[in-house]
Amino acid sequence: MSSTAGQVIRCRAAVAWEAGKPLVIEEVEVAPPQTNEVRVKILFTSLCHTDVYFWEAKGQNPLFPRIYGHEAGGIVESVGEGVTDLKPGDHVLPVFTGECKECAHCKSEESNMCDLLRINTDRGVMLNDGKSRFSINGRPIYHFVGTSTFSEYTVIHVGCLAKINPLAPLDKVCVLSCGISTGLGATLNVAKPAKGSTVAVFGLGAVGLAAAEGARIAGASRIIGVDLNSNRFEEAKKFGATEFVNPKDYNKPVQEVIAEMTNGGVDRSVECTGHIDAMISAFECVHDGWGVAVLVGVPHKDAVFKTHPMNLLNERTLKGTFFGNYKPRSDLPSVVEKYMSKELEVEKFITHTVPFSEINKAFEYMLRGEGLRCIIRMEE
Amino acid sequence: MSSTAGQVIRCRAAVAWEAGKPLVIEEVEVAPPQTNEVRVKILFTSLCHTDVYFWEAKGQNPLFPRIYGHEAGGIVESVGEGVTDLKPGDHVLPVFTGECKECAHCKSEESNMCDLLRINTDRGVMLNDGKSRFSINGRPIYHFVGTSTFSEYTVIHVGCLAKINPLAPLDKVCVLSCGISTGLGATLNVAKPAKGSTVAVFGLGAVGLAAAEGARIAGASRIIGVDLNSNRFEEAKKFGATEFVNPKDYNKPVQEVIAEMTNGGVDRSVECTGHIDAMISAFECVHDGWGVAVLVGVPHKDAVFKTHPMNLLNERTLKGTFFGNYKPRSDLPSVVEKYMSKELEVEKFITHTVPFSEINKAFEYMLRGEGLRCIIRMEE
Ligand SMILES: NC(=O)c1ccc[n+]([C@@H]2O[C@H](COP(=O)([O-])OP(=O)(O)OC[C@H]3O[C@@H](n4cnc5c(N)ncnc54)[C@H](O)[C@@H]3O)[C@@H](O)[C@H]2O)c1
Ligand SMILES: NC(=O)c1ccc[n+]([C@@H]2O[C@H](COP(=O)([O-])OP(=O)(O)OC[C@H]3O[C@@H](n4cnc5c(N)ncnc54)[C@H](O)[C@@H]3O)[C@@H](O)[C@H]2O)c1
Ligand SMILES: [Zn+2]
Ligand SMILES: [Zn+2]
Ligand SMILES: [Zn+2]
Ligand SMILES: [Zn+2]
Repeated sequence: MSSTAGQVIRCRAAVAWEAGKPLVIEEVEVAPPQTNEVRVKILFTSLCHTDVYFWEAKGQNPLFPRIYGHEAGGIVESVGEGVTDLKPGDHVLPVFTGECKECAHCKSEESNMCDLLRINTDRGVMLNDGKSRFSINGRPIYHFVGTSTFSEYTVIHVGCLAKINPLAPLDKVCVLSCGISTGLGATLNVAKPAKGSTVAVFGLGAVGLAAAEGARIAGASRIIGVDLNSNRFEEAKKFGATEFVNPKDYNKPVQEVIAEMTNGGVDRSVECTGHIDAMISAFECVHDGWGVAVLVGVPHKDAVFKTHPMNLLNERTLKGTFFGNYKPRSDLPSVVEKYMSKELEVEKFITHTVPFSEINKAFEYMLRGEGLRCIIRMEE
Repeated sequence: MSSTAGQVIRCRAAVAWEAGKPLVIEEVEVAPPQTNEVRVKILFTSLCHTDVYFWEAKGQNPLFPRIYGHEAGGIVESVGEGVTDLKPGDHVLPVFTGECKECAHCKSEESNMCDLLRINTDRGVMLNDGKSRFSINGRPIYHFVGTSTFSEYTVIHVGCLAKINPLAPLDKVCVLSCGISTGLGATLNVAKPAKGSTVAVFGLGAVGLAAAEGARIAGASRIIGVDLNSNRFEEAKKFGATEFVNPKDYNKPVQEVIAEMTNGGVDRSVECTGHIDAMISAFECVHDGWGVAVLVGVPHKDAVFKTHPMNLLNERTLKGTFFGNYKPRSDLPSVVEKYMSKELEVEKFITHTVPFSEINKAFEYMLRGEGLRCIIRMEE
């Protein structure tokens, strides 16, 4: 039992007081974990587009003050009642979506969309009592997607924590909490390209590059990277991409360009842009008879997917995935092992590192589209 | 060697001289089979919507005079050069689509959309020489989908003939040539419901009832039949349907009705209507996390499939199938065996029988929506 167990911890957290305004490092109070909750000491966290999106709060109900952050690695400080799977000292990755192990989704072999702990970006409080565990002078500070990792300590539902190999370096594997696993799993768990097959990846951000990395690991013979920004192509080579297509370079739909390059279409495609036109192209560029397209990007709420049904009847398959179909607790440890066995190369995704006090720099890099992942070190 | 081998055969055929006009039984000349072709004596044939659709010729380029028919059973009379898989006396089912065994599709385990012999409704001649094998006083009569089974003898590419168990009664298994296998395979090969799962079938014509029969064989616990025509429901019970929904009885989308009946959606759905609204409902009524929807119906050429991409990202799968994903030569014999082992009940589909001379009656039954399959006996 740690000496802090059962007590309020005072520590530093980066608080977003207002939409789009720089975060402020504040001293916050972090209450002890309640039933089925775990208090985690965060060692490393990184920034993902989803944090920036909800911090900008242009499309949703703003919920402030709030502590963002959901890609991270840490160590269990103390556990609440009923928690048997984790104990102080365990190494964990927090995940923005959970696994209760009891609902129909958790019991299904195919789904990872837990009924109880599925991502909820509107909720700023803990499930147990509908309250926040963070406060400043008694004023509650909202949680974000159940993780709020931009804090030295945070409280998380046990169902949203993956217990990982304690030998794994947390400053590297922290990035496996969200986008990288999403792209990787989209390819390995959902598209499942056979060795020697052709794969198109739409969008070469961190998620798309992880999808390409998955195709490389699966032994694809051709990996076609598609992006509207040709600057992405050089970097994508490191992730196994062998060819590049910028839809802007052609005056016909990119699905036709790809079909011509591949004698009728690719075997698999993975869409990682969030743009509806890329989703449609990703579907229509797969080969008839056996092609499978997997959608990953989160679309605009008014987006409509449109295609001629003959594209389906000609034996194409269209699927979507959430968090690469990984079940957070059951499957994420094996992704960490893929890194430990050097099958998965995580370092390639880490382009910047900043101390916690400079967390706003991580936001700047992302807003400028510079690099892929910026690691934020909680201990300066 | 039969005595007719190598010679022109004179026999009766039902010729369509004009769009939508009753067929006329004529004496035709059937030339011997050329390279990779087989001449087949048809014993039983049945009528399918596709025959009627192209005979009405409302939507396509009319090609007349023509001999329709593609669901049938017969016996090989003689074979052309290069045919090694079949010999005179073999029992066969002609199929409107083929399997060359050499193209990328035939070599893929997943596809049955042979590059060489895929259905072609526009072609009225044989591949080998671009000519017809049928004539009347020297005037060629066009073929239909490579089968033209409304004739006592017909010439078919060897790739479009499934060699079946000679003990199988041809007057029953002839209906396995097209629609019944299409619906059955859509469920068994593509939707693949687990034992105990819930399945919705949209459209309760012959194809949809075969899809329901597939769900019954797979051990589905609930089979929900959906049709705009409530008259179809009583008959559907024989095919395993346990519940019925007529979308007209509700003032909300049928996908919502089904989601309410099933705690969030069915595990699998199979669309057998050809109508775009049913296709969309069939997709949107499957459960998130694991639901799979399979499209079978052939849509209007201007139809557009539309859905919100979140329906996909919530881990639903959308697939289409052609001929139930059966490879005609490799797989159809096993469907016949399913009938022989009494797993598949074929008799339920056969509601009428007429002698060849009364073939126009079969058209009348179908146009009136009466019954499911009418067997046409070539020997009166
Ligand atoms: N980042 C995550 O952690 C995460 C997790 C789950 C899902 N997602 C979703 O995955 C998608 C990608 O995430 P990311 O972080 O890699 O984003 P990103 O913005 O870094 O990368 C997206 C890339 O797609 C390209 N692009 C945009 N429109 C395109 C088009 N029509 N055709 C081709 N390329 C196009 C952009 O130029 C950019 O390079 C987003 O929709 C995101 O919401 C992300
Ligand atoms: N018949 C075949 O051999 C075959 C082979 C392959 C594919 N197909 C396709 O499968 C489809 C079904 O074939 P079939 O022979 O069973 O046709 P059918 O016309 O006998 O049956 C279709 C049924 O769907 C119902 N229906 C129509 N619109 C509907 C809607 N919006 N919602 C619910 N029910 C609706 C009709 O009332 C009818 O009972 C067709 O599109 C056909 O082209 C058929
Ligand atoms: Zn759950
Ligand atoms: Zn993220
Ligand atoms: Zn072929
Ligand atoms: Zn048919």
